Amino acid sequence: MRFSRACAAVLIVVFVCAASSMCLAQASAAGAKKSLGAKTLAAPCPVWVIGSYDTAGKPNVMTASWAAICCSQPPCVTVSLRKATYTYGNIMTSKAFTVNIPSEQFARETMYFGSVSGKDVDKFATSGLTPVKSDLVNAPYVREFPLVIECKLLQTVELGLHTMFIGEIVDVKADESILNAAGTPDLTKLKPFLIAPGNSDFYGIGASIGSMEELGKPLKK
Amino acid sequence: MRFSRACAAVLIVVFVCAASSMCLAQASAAGAKKSLGAKTLAAPCPVWVIGSYDTAGKPNVMTASWAAICCSQPPCVTVSLRKATYTYGNIMTSKAFTVNIPSEQFARETMYFGSVSGKDVDKFATSGLTPVKSDLVNAPYVREFPLVIECKLLQTVELGLHTMFIGEIVDVKADESILNAAGTPDLTKLKPFLIAPGNSDFYGIGASIGSMEELGKPLKK
Repeated sequence: MRFSRACAAVLIVVFVCAASSMCLAQASAAGAKKSLGAKTLAAPCPVWVIGSYDTAGKPNVMTASWAAICCSQPPCVTVSLRKATYTYGNIMTSKAFTVNIPSEQFARETMYFGSVSGKDVDKFATSGLTPVKSDLVNAPYVREFPLVIECKLLQTVELGLHTMFIGEIVDVKADESILNAAGTPDLTKLKPFLIAPGNSDFYGIGASIGSMEELGKPLKK
Repeated sequence: MRFSRACAAVLIVVFVCAASSMCLAQASAAGAKKSLGAKTLAAPCPVWVIGSYDTAGKPNVMTASWAAICCSQPPCVTVSLRKATYTYGNIMTSKAFTVNIPSEQFARETMYFGSVSGKDVDKFATSGLTPVKSDLVNAPYVREFPLVIECKLLQTVELGLHTMFIGEIVDVKADESILNAAGTPDLTKLKPFLIAPGNSDFYGIGASIGSMEELGKPLKK
């Protein structure tokens, strides 16, 4: 009797364990992912500064993260802006903008550029940074930022609350100090930064984790 | 005579020094930036993987970096692809795609996904990663990747060599392990990575360099 009770206890334990692992297996089979809803939670997103002139010729800058290169021929970059921004009206009129890529040392100015409107303040004057008129397009760039992209407006795409501005890249200008031996920007010298999705924390660039050559090889064999 | 020669020498030295500093001043006034030409040299760029089905229902994945969130209402994401890619035809037919965000541990598979074509190989089979059919759109996502975005194709924009695919985000799904206390992805847990402009080196996420609250304050005063 004592023995059979012990057996029953063991069987119950075995059954509970088996049921638990079945549940775990099912959760694993479903991917066990949590739905976060239809939100803009992508990462990493760049932190860039868009330069433009208003109708009076006052240079303005605003911070934007919903932006990317979008074509190689012609070379194009896109940035999404709300109609409510001062920059939206500026680019619609001037048909040009610059993308200015700050290094970490300008995190403070970059965050400031994204937190006030050019309708109310002269952000260059307040920050002490210097607007330089592009010799190629009707837009200013930030002299102190190490990498700038000059663009003429190619087209706009109305999506809803945001409008995509697609600019053709007419030139890229860089401080010599951020270039590598091949003459292209070196991320570890440029030190651009990122913004976390769903909040406003900035992160720097981390260590190299490998090149296409070394990473792609094992699976291609 | 000896004295006047010495005076002349001093004057020449002074003149050369003055001329040099004028040149330096002019270079500085011009921003001293080097023109790199009309190139797609922006940074940082994300490294994402696009999931799609072909007409036979075979799941495919390709790596893309020219991609970004592009609207908040409706929530949208854009990715630029060349017509030559297998994914281009897949999305044109299926009208859906997923954006799969790899963590550093999947750098090898991600690089592989960007170096071969789904026309020639079954990338899921070769890599050992698992396609999961989205229950919301006609596209597969990568089970092992910690953050995935399911999209229905909203529109395409032909730019030249690249076409922009604009997808409406219908859901974001995440592994619980990468979420912070607020339930949004934590970059330090997600560990997404970046690609350097002009080459194919991958970089991880670095340290936090501050929040909007602390960074923006000093200049707003």
